[in-house]
Amino acid sequence: MKPLSRLTVALALMTSCAAASAAPPAGLTVAQVLERSPANDWRPLDPQNTLLMDLGAEGSRQVIIELAPRFAPQHAANIRTLAHEGYWDGLAINRVQDNYVTQWGDPNADHPDKAKPLGKALAKLPAEFSVPLKGLPLVRLPDADGWAAVSGFVDGMPVAADPKTGRAWLAHCYGVVGAGRDMAVDSSNGTELYTVIGQSPRGLDLNITVVGRVLQGMQHLAALPRGGAEMGFYGPDEQRTTIQRVRLLADVPEAERPSLEVLRTDSATWPALLDARRVRKEDWFVHSPRHIGLCNATVPVRPRAPRAVEAPGK
Amino acid sequence: MKPLSRLTVALALMTSCAAASAAPPAGLTVAQVLERSPANDWRPLDPQNTLLMDLGAEGSRQVIIELAPRFAPQHAANIRTLAHEGYWDGLAINRVQDNYVTQWGDPNADHPDKAKPLGKALAKLPAEFSVPLKGLPLVRLPDADGWAAVSGFVDGMPVAADPKTGRAWLAHCYGVVGAGRDMAVDSSNGTELYTVIGQSPRGLDLNITVVGRVLQGMQHLAALPRGGAEMGFYGPDEQRTTIQRVRLLADVPEAERPSLEVLRTDSATWPALLDARRVRKEDWFVHSPRHIGLCNATVPVRPRAPRAVEAPGK
Repeated sequence: MKPLSRLTVALALMTSCAAASAAPPAGLTVAQVLERSPANDWRPLDPQNTLLMDLGAEGSRQVIIELAPRFAPQHAANIRTLAHEGYWDGLAINRVQDNYVTQWGDPNADHPDKAKPLGKALAKLPAEFSVPLKGLPLVRLPDADGWAAVSGFVDGMPVAADPKTGRAWLAHCYGVVGAGRDMAVDSSNGTELYTVIGQSPRGLDLNITVVGRVLQGMQHLAALPRGGAEMGFYGPDEQRTTIQRVRLLADVPEAERPSLEVLRTDSATWPALLDARRVRKEDWFVHSPRHIGLCNATVPVRPRAPRAVEAPGK
Repeated sequence: MKPLSRLTVALALMTSCAAASAAPPAGLTVAQVLERSPANDWRPLDPQNTLLMDLGAEGSRQVIIELAPRFAPQHAANIRTLAHEGYWDGLAINRVQDNYVTQWGDPNADHPDKAKPLGKALAKLPAEFSVPLKGLPLVRLPDADGWAAVSGFVDGMPVAADPKTGRAWLAHCYGVVGAGRDMAVDSSNGTELYTVIGQSPRGLDLNITVVGRVLQGMQHLAALPRGGAEMGFYGPDEQRTTIQRVRLLADVPEAERPSLEVLRTDSATWPALLDARRVRKEDWFVHSPRHIGLCNATVPVRPRAPRAVEAPGK
């Protein structure tokens, strides 16, 4: 394990300037790496780039989505506007295709007379399929990806890149959120969104605008009944899950905001965690893969550690 | 596309002796490849290696599982015995962990006084984690896998292999079925089974016995409510989905057997289908991955084409 561990820590340090904490010792289990991670290796939710989607008539099932404005700035801005204006409130999950995607938005989007107005949001946006690789703070994953020459993480998002074209893009991993489009590449505007609920359909990469990823609550989108019509759309007689509301975290009163933190992929804990997944120290395992796939390298999210500010004696 | 197409067809022909049909022309969509596939490129269900699992109190949700006796002969034999004797009838789904596995069996397996008797099935089996690569009729996938040096398909099952060790094993792709075990490698006997419902957890490969794959009905296992206890197990207050019954297809009257056929991975249609997924001809796509992942290369299953034996004039 040690050569692999040293290599990946070295790579992470080379490609990241924010790795302030010391690398944890090698030979730990996944749980031990996380337990020993310093508080600074975690970051709080970003109010301007986090959506809270409450599902069901009572809104009791919450999905938390993080936007990726570095990769899709115009879609992220439009989605912020749509959430701020309550665009999705009362709309529905329209499609659940097994081992593929769950998709939501306006069931009447294709009927101009019935479609929900967009308010201040823009109806038309450019395609945002990729960004320049140069200058991207990519924490590289040294493991072979197959789908792309280069892969890694930026702001906790799975990224693939091609040095020959100089482009980088968000990879279609489980829980990644994209903006549905029709035939024209610039026909998405962020009103209709989908998330991956099965094996990563990486063939979609570079064909559609990816806008972020689900941080928590994926089970509320992945465990829904599959749609009976073509491509997993719900038929007219099938009951759709209602979206009670979608709010931008910045619009939610502080007291109501979920208290979560996300492991920083530019921390020293991150490569140590990947090593613990490549070479398993848990007793159950008798074989280690000595590899991790881009879409298996899920970035942990956890309840935020209470700050040590309690009055003594309580 | 042509160089890739020629290469993969050539590879398939080299590693397979059953490719009787001519290779379809290049430049087709996925749907066109399937439409033009000759009838001989499909095979019927094997009654001795197919399980029908009927879920829910009324058994209205059917899951069809194909066993892989070439990879796990003793587990497959035990599972046949268990199904023949009705072992799973009235048992339940016990665990659904998001982006990981759905697991079923006896909720009381750990309570000797309450556990369901195994009948003629064996309580103890050897671990069957891998088989010799030599002699395996592997239809190789030329695309890089990352997790293993060699990958491909045998009897429609996704396989990985290591020429250095000379071993091959079934890969943990979406819908693959394995036999749960405790700490000892030989603690599985096929009574407790699981299937993958998320991104392929290939780190499980070579750590556990894989016994087959789901051919149809995955949505009935993947869309179940996630369990609220540790590792996705259902807690005592959570409602479990009942298994009405599990039957070996050979024990089912002919008239009740589902009429399905599976694309032969040793046919000429198979590499043509992979090419159509690598280089997309559908109008919607503006970029082709020129790659396919082992776990994205799902093997098609479809209703069996009616045989042309109807009496004329009817």
